[in-house]
Amino acid sequence: MSKLWGGRFSKKTQPVVEKFTKSIHYDQRLLEYDCWGSLIHVNILKKAGLLSVAESTKLIKGIKEILEEYSGKKIDDKYEDIHTFVQNTLENKKGLGKIALKLHTCRSRNDQIVFDMKSYCKTKSLELSNLFFDLCKVLLNLAEENIDIQMPGYTHLQRAMPIKLSEYLLAYNEMFKSDALRLQNYEINIKLTMGAGALAGTFIESKQYNFAAKLYLSESKTIVKPTDNAIYTVSDRDFIIEFLSILSISGMHLSRLAEDFVLWSTKEFDYIDIDESFCTGSSLMPQKKNPDVMELIRGYSGRVYGNLINVLVMMKGLPLSYNRDMQLDKEPLFDSIDVIGNSLSVLKELLLNVEFKKENMQAQLNDETLYATDIADYLVREEGVPFKQAHTIIGKLISEKLKTGKPILEMELEELKKFHEGLTPNVLRKIINSKFSVDSKRSVKKK
Amino acid sequence: MSKLWGGRFSKKTQPVVEKFTKSIHYDQRLLEYDCWGSLIHVNILKKAGLLSVAESTKLIKGIKEILEEYSGKKIDDKYEDIHTFVQNTLENKKGLGKIALKLHTCRSRNDQIVFDMKSYCKTKSLELSNLFFDLCKVLLNLAEENIDIQMPGYTHLQRAMPIKLSEYLLAYNEMFKSDALRLQNYEINIKLTMGAGALAGTFIESKQYNFAAKLYLSESKTIVKPTDNAIYTVSDRDFIIEFLSILSISGMHLSRLAEDFVLWSTKEFDYIDIDESFCTGSSLMPQKKNPDVMELIRGYSGRVYGNLINVLVMMKGLPLSYNRDMQLDKEPLFDSIDVIGNSLSVLKELLLNVEFKKENMQAQLNDETLYATDIADYLVREEGVPFKQAHTIIGKLISEKLKTGKPILEMELEELKKFHEGLTPNVLRKIINSKFSVDSKRSVKKK
Amino acid sequence: MSKLWGGRFSKKTQPVVEKFTKSIHYDQRLLEYDCWGSLIHVNILKKAGLLSVAESTKLIKGIKEILEEYSGKKIDDKYEDIHTFVQNTLENKKGLGKIALKLHTCRSRNDQIVFDMKSYCKTKSLELSNLFFDLCKVLLNLAEENIDIQMPGYTHLQRAMPIKLSEYLLAYNEMFKSDALRLQNYEINIKLTMGAGALAGTFIESKQYNFAAKLYLSESKTIVKPTDNAIYTVSDRDFIIEFLSILSISGMHLSRLAEDFVLWSTKEFDYIDIDESFCTGSSLMPQKKNPDVMELIRGYSGRVYGNLINVLVMMKGLPLSYNRDMQLDKEPLFDSIDVIGNSLSVLKELLLNVEFKKENMQAQLNDETLYATDIADYLVREEGVPFKQAHTIIGKLISEKLKTGKPILEMELEELKKFHEGLTPNVLRKIINSKFSVDSKRSVKKK
Amino acid sequence: MSKLWGGRFSKKTQPVVEKFTKSIHYDQRLLEYDCWGSLIHVNILKKAGLLSVAESTKLIKGIKEILEEYSGKKIDDKYEDIHTFVQNTLENKKGLGKIALKLHTCRSRNDQIVFDMKSYCKTKSLELSNLFFDLCKVLLNLAEENIDIQMPGYTHLQRAMPIKLSEYLLAYNEMFKSDALRLQNYEINIKLTMGAGALAGTFIESKQYNFAAKLYLSESKTIVKPTDNAIYTVSDRDFIIEFLSILSISGMHLSRLAEDFVLWSTKEFDYIDIDESFCTGSSLMPQKKNPDVMELIRGYSGRVYGNLINVLVMMKGLPLSYNRDMQLDKEPLFDSIDVIGNSLSVLKELLLNVEFKKENMQAQLNDETLYATDIADYLVREEGVPFKQAHTIIGKLISEKLKTGKPILEMELEELKKFHEGLTPNVLRKIINSKFSVDSKRSVKKK
Repeated sequence: MSKLWGGRFSKKTQPVVEKFTKSIHYDQRLLEYDCWGSLIHVNILKKAGLLSVAESTKLIKGIKEILEEYSGKKIDDKYEDIHTFVQNTLENKKGLGKIALKLHTCRSRNDQIVFDMKSYCKTKSLELSNLFFDLCKVLLNLAEENIDIQMPGYTHLQRAMPIKLSEYLLAYNEMFKSDALRLQNYEINIKLTMGAGALAGTFIESKQYNFAAKLYLSESKTIVKPTDNAIYTVSDRDFIIEFLSILSISGMHLSRLAEDFVLWSTKEFDYIDIDESFCTGSSLMPQKKNPDVMELIRGYSGRVYGNLINVLVMMKGLPLSYNRDMQLDKEPLFDSIDVIGNSLSVLKELLLNVEFKKENMQAQLNDETLYATDIADYLVREEGVPFKQAHTIIGKLISEKLKTGKPILEMELEELKKFHEGLTPNVLRKIINSKFSVDSKRSVKKK
Repeated sequence: MSKLWGGRFSKKTQPVVEKFTKSIHYDQRLLEYDCWGSLIHVNILKKAGLLSVAESTKLIKGIKEILEEYSGKKIDDKYEDIHTFVQNTLENKKGLGKIALKLHTCRSRNDQIVFDMKSYCKTKSLELSNLFFDLCKVLLNLAEENIDIQMPGYTHLQRAMPIKLSEYLLAYNEMFKSDALRLQNYEINIKLTMGAGALAGTFIESKQYNFAAKLYLSESKTIVKPTDNAIYTVSDRDFIIEFLSILSISGMHLSRLAEDFVLWSTKEFDYIDIDESFCTGSSLMPQKKNPDVMELIRGYSGRVYGNLINVLVMMKGLPLSYNRDMQLDKEPLFDSIDVIGNSLSVLKELLLNVEFKKENMQAQLNDETLYATDIADYLVREEGVPFKQAHTIIGKLISEKLKTGKPILEMELEELKKFHEGLTPNVLRKIINSKFSVDSKRSVKKK
Repeated sequence: MSKLWGGRFSKKTQPVVEKFTKSIHYDQRLLEYDCWGSLIHVNILKKAGLLSVAESTKLIKGIKEILEEYSGKKIDDKYEDIHTFVQNTLENKKGLGKIALKLHTCRSRNDQIVFDMKSYCKTKSLELSNLFFDLCKVLLNLAEENIDIQMPGYTHLQRAMPIKLSEYLLAYNEMFKSDALRLQNYEINIKLTMGAGALAGTFIESKQYNFAAKLYLSESKTIVKPTDNAIYTVSDRDFIIEFLSILSISGMHLSRLAEDFVLWSTKEFDYIDIDESFCTGSSLMPQKKNPDVMELIRGYSGRVYGNLINVLVMMKGLPLSYNRDMQLDKEPLFDSIDVIGNSLSVLKELLLNVEFKKENMQAQLNDETLYATDIADYLVREEGVPFKQAHTIIGKLISEKLKTGKPILEMELEELKKFHEGLTPNVLRKIINSKFSVDSKRSVKKK
Repeated sequence: MSKLWGGRFSKKTQPVVEKFTKSIHYDQRLLEYDCWGSLIHVNILKKAGLLSVAESTKLIKGIKEILEEYSGKKIDDKYEDIHTFVQNTLENKKGLGKIALKLHTCRSRNDQIVFDMKSYCKTKSLELSNLFFDLCKVLLNLAEENIDIQMPGYTHLQRAMPIKLSEYLLAYNEMFKSDALRLQNYEINIKLTMGAGALAGTFIESKQYNFAAKLYLSESKTIVKPTDNAIYTVSDRDFIIEFLSILSISGMHLSRLAEDFVLWSTKEFDYIDIDESFCTGSSLMPQKKNPDVMELIRGYSGRVYGNLINVLVMMKGLPLSYNRDMQLDKEPLFDSIDVIGNSLSVLKELLLNVEFKKENMQAQLNDETLYATDIADYLVREEGVPFKQAHTIIGKLISEKLKTGKPILEMELEELKKFHEGLTPNVLRKIINSKFSVDSKRSVKKK
């Protein structure tokens, strides 16, 4: 390997230092973006008269060959970083040796890595956004397929009121839609720039850095612009932290769905059956069928939170402009992207293989306490009782029921009257009904 | 105090439990927002025929009196929470007792607190955004006032190239502008809704929840809409986490400026003088003048990170829908808002009282190594040397200078020729000049 | 207020700076420890000949008066910090004015605050340790009282094997015992020192700093020693982070117990009844009885994690020795101590008011799949089947049962033989029995 | 691969699920510990009569062969986890097929992984502890070699008082010694147990689990005991979090040393020269020599903090006993161990190649303000001025010096008298002397 620096050094770098400082084992993931940036830079150098047409043509051919040969391949760890790998490989190409030495004109890795990472983040945020939208589609389908299932809704994990299963699934749809939209907005706000140099800009005129970029990663159709403030460009890692923040919220959302599904697949709730091809067993207990996938998804929230904190801490208190600490932004970002991406992929498949146990859900709706609010509402609407008073009345009715163990629907008119005159067996029979209950909620009828 | 619940309970809540669960000592900060929401709710109940015109007029008057009497006042800790305080106070108003009992019709604190907090977040994010814009103005002024100061730019905290002090200040301007814009976008994306009830919606028709809200907090001119999904509404705290994420990035930005200013006010750098009215001394060492304000601003990054993690953790793995854990979102949010707000206020004043020591900055520009890149660039532009080769040549020149201790500007033509023929004393005299250097950077000329 | 510094300053500190930098609103909690340290310091100054006997007697009297007058009282926010308050109050005492000016001889707040905080941490860690031991006692009692209750044990929240409820409760006992022991070890390892000065030590001889300290906080019986390394002493906040780390683990433990109790108090599990005086209700739903205390305890894990990260971040990358950032160690520490202390207090009371529903637990033990491992073990022990083979055999038996819906205990000999010859109705009747199952586990019989 | 479970399953696990749930790519690091545990388990089974002598001899031979063949080798990713790999490999050994099926008798991976991880943590904590002690030795040597260098000590990064460089280095020695001791105490407190089974214990008698373990990892000489509470054992990950907490403090310590060394290697401080074989250069700026190693060490603090939070979050709110989330404890732990281990190794080498620039340090000691405290102390000791008064007097002297620019040592007796009669040129010449200053600090003289 030949370094991108070193003329001033008389000693060789210590092997332990080379190992400690290198990043090739993780930044090789940026190969495409680095090559793409180099293609643009070649064009800029050509426009600026720093490369001849012939030179630039050769360089572009060389870079494209590297792309073709190494995309998706494991790259040898002997290089310091991905920039060095690309530069070295170019230099070793027949006929490119001398021309390649010109590639680093007006260019610093400080600026280059920002370009690479921003391109990468744009691409990956869109990919993940699409995965979230896919998941939303699955949830919407499930909601539609199960539109007629009612179940107990929970607050504080205590039964609250009857709801539709579909509303429940659509709540998760809202969450994941917000994740998708957050990622989309994020992507739009990342602006690709060039020309920052190490921190002070370069001698090429700013207009040369205006570039409609459709060279390699054709789907992004982005434009590149000269940076407004070179110091800021090389000092900034906000775009990494923003991505990690978004993924932390996503990780939290996923952990909640996972928790619900773990609960629902217990014998005690027994609301769903996760297909056994998505479960694992125990080495000791032959009967076990465990919802491991959901548990791991839940547990990975720790990972994405940890990665967020990692980069926030790394950036804390760094003086301007670039500091080497900032190299450590990559592993946590890559990891969070992988973790969320993998979770979404497996979750989508799992959801397509979940059975909702309608009978079990429906059976729980016999719990009369679920209708307490509906009864209070009745007193408000039909009997003109102020709500807070109705709340107390029904609270006492429930208390009586729990004390005596007698179902409300078996209470006589006489007994009911003690609570309020408007409460009759007939009225209660109408109200204590899950379909009646969910149909009476009209504040949120969208469709 | 009379609770908003309790009919079903036959025992009194344990005092230790009341103390442990209450939130009035911190959620009293929401008084205005809670009253404002109640004013809207009264109008909705009126439109829905659940309150007469006379009743609603009385309630509105009562709520406005509370606003007038208690805004900005300390509220007694005996109440469970701010909702209970408002409700109790209304009930105790002459002639309102019975009407007030109707206020909680079709309303749950689960929905109410989301409305309150979203209104609060909208208001506070705009306030903070303005503080960031104020800070930007100060930085822009400082940049302009000091437009002709050059100084060494740093990477790895090692001297890199000459830059303008103004570029440095403008880098921070970019950071804080991004903070301000992030807050603005955040504010726009928070949508106020009503009608979620506890989690299942209410029996009032959705159209009644459409409301152009200009009742109390007139500056926000927001509209209120019925929720799309009631379960989601009461389960969601993304808007808290998003706010905390933004403030974490801000805290990081502030820590970096603080670090730079702490460094610059050392005797060793000696680039700035912070006015002594912004410094403190030592109880032991009579000579000390310490940049405490900057240190505290730097240290507060820990606080805002911690608050972010706090809420992320609290939300991890919570099943839908509302859980009481979610009450704990408030203290960390309030704290981060305070910490960043206070930091911005004091920082703005401090910046107006900083003196940049032009002579000291300028003196450091005699360091010839700062011009190494400029000399290499010269070889590229005027002598056609490929950059990487030029880099090596100048690296060796620097190495020689360091070894012999001889300034480059004192080297004879003969000595210089050993490195490259194009290097002459005349040429170097032109290049080793900070004004020449910063003027030659044309990639980022905006203005 | 008269500052402890300022001779060198010609301008008054800006009010916004005074407000931003002061700590009296939270460090007043250290009053006792600061006074205690001052009492020791007076004795040291006396021993060193820097105070006369008469002077020291007066100062000690004055300090003790402050202790008496202000312990547990709210202290006026006008002072900069607790040290300034004590010093000012002393100076204003009749006849002490001039003598009090000598108190700060050979003393720096850098050293003083370390002493105060270490004393505070010693005291508080022991207090919390005792609260954990109290909780353990409650758990041990509950385990004993419920020694004959069996219930399903869970892994992955799926029913695994029959266990004793007592074993479950004792698992939490182990956790909280480990918390208590961690705190005890922590306390022992904090060594109190004096004599660091600002960072360089003082001119008083080290032997004078050896002091058996039983002056004020008599229960701690600690000795004070001269510091080994003054720079280290004033730079170090490990003892804060260690405390916060321990409390984070405790917070995690508490969140797990809380989660279990939230689950167990659902209608679906219905294993416990939390006394209603420890629950709260809903403002909308009259029937609700929510386990809010457990939810808040669970949610507070976020708080203690956040406080830990806060201080870790604040300390990151600080150059030696003391930096003002370090003032921000106090609020997070105080908060974590309060949060855990309050949680323990309320949890202890709650546990004394929980009813374990034996019948419900016992009813679940009819689930035959709970005994799968026991049946496999039988094949190993009595039939010599290699375990892994037995595991497969019983896995198939369970699979058959689930497919056909036929209870194992109703299967005929013929059917059973298909799986293994050793499986007979008689044998199975003996094995499928929760008492038999828990009794056969002999690896962990302690008592 | 043949799974350790599956008899009950009629469908094959989805490939996407296998990929998502497997851990072999990281838990293969536990090979030695897993084999070691298996060797012990074989002996326990033999003692319990569940394996014959011949069977156990064969199994032991087989396990030892695996150890020999695979230690330190990359293991194929096709296995689910390390336990499955060992089991499968055993089963495939000639003549072991049937015997190997008995190995999982009375054994669950829940218990096994705890044993493996505890053994691993014991080993690694001792290794790291030794690395810290090594670093301490280097620091002690450096302190001794540079015993006669004085330099300015800093608080708030402002010059405070003269100190010895050795005291500074020894402050770091104290920090790293505390890290080493914390690791040692940690190691001692990890107790190895067996016999927990999945969560309920096993049918083997507890006494069989008493085992003096010197089989494989001979240096640890640990004893194995039966677990006190099986549920606790399989539910507990405190030992992981404790390790991560210790390493977070270490990471913080390292970040502070790194910060100091980054500062000291600036041109502005210029106190040290890091050998260029430990530095790297810039691809753009030929003159750069950057302290990258120190920057990366500083930045890695984010990594270890993030890993700690990761596991804390993962464990939050998990019901007892084992949940699959807990598998995610490994990657963060392994990563923190690697990061700290590598940092220590490279730091030790770097320290051996640092030159302390005595002249530059000494030159800064001409700064007269460094002696302000010494002059105040003089007034206290020799002139009987109360310290706080002396502090004010010298504060004014410093103020005068700064205003007029006149060195104190050039002030005439007349001028000095205005501040205090005791201040004479002669006296000041004696005091304003760095050797005099450091020698007068007698509070911390250890040696």
